[in-house]
Amino acid sequence: MEKAHAHCDIPCGIYSDHPSQMAADTVVKMVEKITALPTDGSADEILQARNSFVRMVMVKEQHAELCKRELLILWTDYFKPEHLEKYPNLHDQIWKAAKLCSRNKQEINMQAARQLQEAVHEIGHIFVETKK
Amino acid sequence: MEKAHAHCDIPCGIYSDHPSQMAADTVVKMVEKITALPTDGSADEILQARNSFVRMVMVKEQHAELCKRELLILWTDYFKPEHLEKYPNLHDQIWKAAKLCSRNKQEINMQAARQLQEAVHEIGHIFVETKK
Amino acid sequence: MEKAHAHCDIPCGIYSDHPSQMAADTVVKMVEKITALPTDGSADEILQARNSFVRMVMVKEQHAELCKRELLILWTDYFKPEHLEKYPNLHDQIWKAAKLCSRNKQEINMQAARQLQEAVHEIGHIFVETKK
Amino acid sequence: MEKAHAHCDIPCGIYSDHPSQMAADTVVKMVEKITALPTDGSADEILQARNSFVRMVMVKEQHAELCKRELLILWTDYFKPEHLEKYPNLHDQIWKAAKLCSRNKQEINMQAARQLQEAVHEIGHIFVETKK
Amino acid sequence: MEKAHAHCDIPCGIYSDHPSQMAADTVVKMVEKITALPTDGSADEILQARNSFVRMVMVKEQHAELCKRELLILWTDYFKPEHLEKYPNLHDQIWKAAKLCSRNKQEINMQAARQLQEAVHEIGHIFVETKK
Amino acid sequence: MEKAHAHCDIPCGIYSDHPSQMAADTVVKMVEKITALPTDGSADEILQARNSFVRMVMVKEQHAELCKRELLILWTDYFKPEHLEKYPNLHDQIWKAAKLCSRNKQEINMQAARQLQEAVHEIGHIFVETKK
Repeated sequence: MEKAHAHCDIPCGIYSDHPSQMAADTVVKMVEKITALPTDGSADEILQARNSFVRMVMVKEQHAELCKRELLILWTDYFKPEHLEKYPNLHDQIWKAAKLCSRNKQEINMQAARQLQEAVHEIGHIFVETKK
Repeated sequence: MEKAHAHCDIPCGIYSDHPSQMAADTVVKMVEKITALPTDGSADEILQARNSFVRMVMVKEQHAELCKRELLILWTDYFKPEHLEKYPNLHDQIWKAAKLCSRNKQEINMQAARQLQEAVHEIGHIFVETKK
Repeated sequence: MEKAHAHCDIPCGIYSDHPSQMAADTVVKMVEKITALPTDGSADEILQARNSFVRMVMVKEQHAELCKRELLILWTDYFKPEHLEKYPNLHDQIWKAAKLCSRNKQEINMQAARQLQEAVHEIGHIFVETKK
Repeated sequence: MEKAHAHCDIPCGIYSDHPSQMAADTVVKMVEKITALPTDGSADEILQARNSFVRMVMVKEQHAELCKRELLILWTDYFKPEHLEKYPNLHDQIWKAAKLCSRNKQEINMQAARQLQEAVHEIGHIFVETKK
Repeated sequence: MEKAHAHCDIPCGIYSDHPSQMAADTVVKMVEKITALPTDGSADEILQARNSFVRMVMVKEQHAELCKRELLILWTDYFKPEHLEKYPNLHDQIWKAAKLCSRNKQEINMQAARQLQEAVHEIGHIFVETKK
Repeated sequence: MEKAHAHCDIPCGIYSDHPSQMAADTVVKMVEKITALPTDGSADEILQARNSFVRMVMVKEQHAELCKRELLILWTDYFKPEHLEKYPNLHDQIWKAAKLCSRNKQEINMQAARQLQEAVHEIGHIFVETKK
């Protein structure tokens, strides 16, 4: 079984598509949980929901940023000229996925979250292909 | 297939043993690379080796710390009382693995690095068992 | 007078129970201040209260996390096997205090905040006893 | 023309008043954007505005802190005794500007934001004068 | 005079090429200072030089990373499809500049440092052109 | 018993001189340990000493920075105009202590480390006096 993970620029040859996928999954989960928060109830229930709202927006922000950073680690540190020859659209694909990360910070939008998850999945697929 | 990963304390139910394993693998890799650095050569070769030495010690330090943090996320956030009943030695196992992280910061020692990798692997095995 | 403080894994032998107590006190203070925020008033008063709410939830989050981290530094770096023999319940006590940190992130709950303060105080007591 | 910027304490002689000005400008921008957020609309519009509110308060907080830090870098690392002789009020000017940073965290207040911008501008003017 | 700076993803429309240029200049300065460190002298002089060496390698690492991050902020957050139409080579230019950042971490090499400074300068030129 | 600690700018009224003193003590400890490192021995002993050297210089750097930051938190957030009237030299005292933090980064120098410890102690004394 392969054990690969993102990272340290030594270079150590240890890269992975997992961290970006985890981050995208977390963004989806946060959108799901935010939209499920109660909007009325007792004073205390509303207070608890507002506490959760702030925390979930923060986690969404951090994981959308993390997702972007992990994709960019693969792009700048892992991918080599020979990969680009085989996947000439790679630059643009990463660029658009990074812009989706920003959009998921700016909105609470399940469609955008799912698009990010899919974009990250496709880049992960290319990553795995080039590792073979 | 479910994709689970470590983390955010919302709680979001997304945990993974991968980050701790990646970090332990990186510690092993750094010990390997540090001990392979040339100790003599031209003035420039020595300078480059000294640059690498500082950087690799820093990366070893950061990933030993990261490994400790990821193990502690599993311990404090993921594991529940029912898991402890099934694995009564878990507290001690995590504690000793965390102490191995510190030891790998303090030394450049392949045996200690391998012990950490194994300790993390065993905790990962328990994690996977409890997810079933 | 002894000067001891938490920390750096060199190891430097400098540990303290103060940082965890400071962090727990701050969580209590934030719960106090959050529940005292006005819920109505002029448009500007409501805006200012909402600004304070977001900031206080963030500070509560950070200090509950800091409290957990400081407790775990004592657990993984300071406490030795001989301390565990004398305080066989220590693993469990730290584990439960760490879970209280998470609970104080997830809720705005004075009872939970006071429980954390007390749990940290008891661990601090053990720390001081073992330093004698 | 030399390009100088704030920073690293090597010392490297590279300082700049730009980062503090950028940070103050960002605080002003956030106050502007926060006060322009819609307070009613469809359920989704209100949700999106609440997402933006949390994010903008966080960015205001971070850039007010950044502004303070950059001013303090100039104060502690760049300014020398001979500058103080020429600008005997400098200590007090920095101190008051730093307190304005805190005030801009605590409030959503365009007047306070503009005062910060001006205070930073004046300190930048002294910086540029002493570089001549 | 325009005041523009890199950053926060709100989006706030405040971007700048200064931070990336500052970071590249710092890398150059560190290479210069590292290669000027004395390699012999009294025991104390050697000790001081070794302290400086570690610190300068760390600062070089941090600013090469900062340079990469600032370039990627411009790439993912500032540049729009219409800019790419006008500068079809932009993706590749950013990618190569980011790889130069990594190379400057891995080596102590004035030629590589100067190449980074130039690459950043050219991207800054495009940035300024698109702001007109 | 008073419980006071440095920090969060809410403001929460919780400040302490402990963190700056802990940080200064750590700088002293690092200088002590660095100068006690063996300079010869077996190849492995030299390797271990070099690992320790890099780590201790990093910890000295971080705690000299932390010391500066904690002093500046007291200066910008805790001290009020009435304190300055009573301690008219306070601005200058903080400024010089901050410069000593930088000096302790730049050198491995027990005299400078002791001066920092004393400067922090004196500021701590003023802090305690103003809390009465």
